[in-house]
Amino acid sequence: MSTITIAVDAMSGDNGVVSTVDAIAIFLKSFDSNKVPTVLIVGIADEINAALSSASLQTSEKLQVIAATEIVTMDESPATALRGKKDSSMRVAINLVKEGAADVAVSAGNTGALMATAKFVLKTIPGIARPALCTKLPTLNAEGQAGTVHVLDLGANIDSSAEQLAQFGMMGSVLCTVLDDIAEPSVTLLNIGQEDLKGNEQVKQAAELLAQTHLNYQGFVEGDEISKGVTDVVVCDGFVGNAVLKTMEGTAKFISQNLKIQFNSSFLSKIAGLIARPIMYKVTEKIDPRNYNGAPLLGLNGLVFKSHGSADAKSFANALQVANIAAKNQLVSKISARIEQSVLKQEILQNND
Amino acid sequence: MSTITIAVDAMSGDNGVVSTVDAIAIFLKSFDSNKVPTVLIVGIADEINAALSSASLQTSEKLQVIAATEIVTMDESPATALRGKKDSSMRVAINLVKEGAADVAVSAGNTGALMATAKFVLKTIPGIARPALCTKLPTLNAEGQAGTVHVLDLGANIDSSAEQLAQFGMMGSVLCTVLDDIAEPSVTLLNIGQEDLKGNEQVKQAAELLAQTHLNYQGFVEGDEISKGVTDVVVCDGFVGNAVLKTMEGTAKFISQNLKIQFNSSFLSKIAGLIARPIMYKVTEKIDPRNYNGAPLLGLNGLVFKSHGSADAKSFANALQVANIAAKNQLVSKISARIEQSVLKQEILQNND
Repeated sequence: MSTITIAVDAMSGDNGVVSTVDAIAIFLKSFDSNKVPTVLIVGIADEINAALSSASLQTSEKLQVIAATEIVTMDESPATALRGKKDSSMRVAINLVKEGAADVAVSAGNTGALMATAKFVLKTIPGIARPALCTKLPTLNAEGQAGTVHVLDLGANIDSSAEQLAQFGMMGSVLCTVLDDIAEPSVTLLNIGQEDLKGNEQVKQAAELLAQTHLNYQGFVEGDEISKGVTDVVVCDGFVGNAVLKTMEGTAKFISQNLKIQFNSSFLSKIAGLIARPIMYKVTEKIDPRNYNGAPLLGLNGLVFKSHGSADAKSFANALQVANIAAKNQLVSKISARIEQSVLKQEILQNND
Repeated sequence: MSTITIAVDAMSGDNGVVSTVDAIAIFLKSFDSNKVPTVLIVGIADEINAALSSASLQTSEKLQVIAATEIVTMDESPATALRGKKDSSMRVAINLVKEGAADVAVSAGNTGALMATAKFVLKTIPGIARPALCTKLPTLNAEGQAGTVHVLDLGANIDSSAEQLAQFGMMGSVLCTVLDDIAEPSVTLLNIGQEDLKGNEQVKQAAELLAQTHLNYQGFVEGDEISKGVTDVVVCDGFVGNAVLKTMEGTAKFISQNLKIQFNSSFLSKIAGLIARPIMYKVTEKIDPRNYNGAPLLGLNGLVFKSHGSADAKSFANALQVANIAAKNQLVSKISARIEQSVLKQEILQNND
């Protein structure tokens, strides 16, 4: 299989071009020399070249600098980014995907602008109303087995209709098959009660739609079940998904800060902390969001990955890895095929009514 | 100040009457003999009497059994509970508040049924469209100081309008003053971005409404800030609030399970676990939801507290403590006064238009 070409927006994240170039260095080191993907680094050429030489990286056919003169800031509105900055590193990176010069674009830029730009440039797959942002999170089941779960949407959309939620379920299912090699991933809807009578109208209707598909739809889960390893894909609207994801981060931080304070509270507890630290480190590592960085924008005619805005080099490198795997496994065409099947099926159903 | 009378629904929780009576025993022990509140235990008389004698408690003027012949089950629909079980322990306990025989009712019964019954029997305060469920959660600020935050709504409502969200903010503010003695609690709205441009329509409009009140309104927070001690009251709709609360529980469980597995993974780590356990126990204790059990249904013409369905005796006793404090401090009349002020002010504003 031929190698993948990745367009990397070097400018838009909180940590700037140096951090992005360091991430690329980490990423490239992980490959055998004959399997190294091609990386197109997009942004202000002088800054990128300076960062490359600091990182002892040399440009080549497999590592090119693509000039872009503007930068989308983290607090810029989607509309301003889209209309006002047509030569931004974000836009140029996505253009490279559109033109077929890259298989995937990766950006740590602001979600709203990235979403709007990607949707404008690449358009959505026929049959998909709105793209969704999906992330992978760690789980632990009742037997103590570690796993992962894909959660979508995480804030690409604010309000989602039942049809859109059902489409998210389809896209999440394909993503899970592509990234985790699970043939029939279980798909669930996030709700506030497992009984059929609970939940809002969109969720109830989405449940009916999902039950009619060929997906392995397994009903509702509640917030405390996301991390329990009971499902492969959790679907929710972007407002809820974003709130839930941020709450997880906040809770993890709250607990680790509390542990730190307790372990520093006395001489004896400091000793205990020294002994316990390596073990706690393993747990922190396991739940470290940096290891799960890299969220695809699903439903577009082209592949775009979002890296966390404040991602450090290690974390950004992880996003590049996931983007590479998704591109290699032709995520976009597989989603298209699944949606097309379902659209066809719906038409057949309608004609038989 | 005279003591409070608490009507306790003894039957509706997952753990049944024995657990409820044990909770009452724990609760009553915490008072000096001349300050003991009056408790009316509502439910199947035979079962309650048997549990009382097991717990070595004797009925008296201050500890009475009030007979009710039916029990609302945990999976019963609100409509069935309301129409079909007019002599349920839940309904009779709330009736006691309505009749003035009790200052507050406490139930571990299912949220939907409790909400519907309480709303039907007690009605909402004039000016309040829908009651809300509010809970207190632990926080830790950047300086390592522990605190708490009140979060509402947690699932009493599914979709909330901007006006309802603003009303939740008012009620949460009064609750915080009553329970935590904070004169002007800071009130925030849960959103998926701090910038004004993000968020759904209800949240944006609620922000405008709250900014016009005399509340100490402080704008938006995101999910990761709930536990950061940056605000006293967080307002969100019931779907989001419930998902966020359950996610916190799930994340805490995920981390503690991971720690347990790591500490059991080798001989050395087991030794480390022995030393670290008392310290980790302190943290677990701090975030234990049992210590924060007891959520008021705000906005009713009478005081009703919801205990977690699976609350054990210690946890249910905590709900009784919070209910007692809220009743003593006349939470309902203080909320009414605040809402009346705001309604009057709105009328004055409208007349001046």
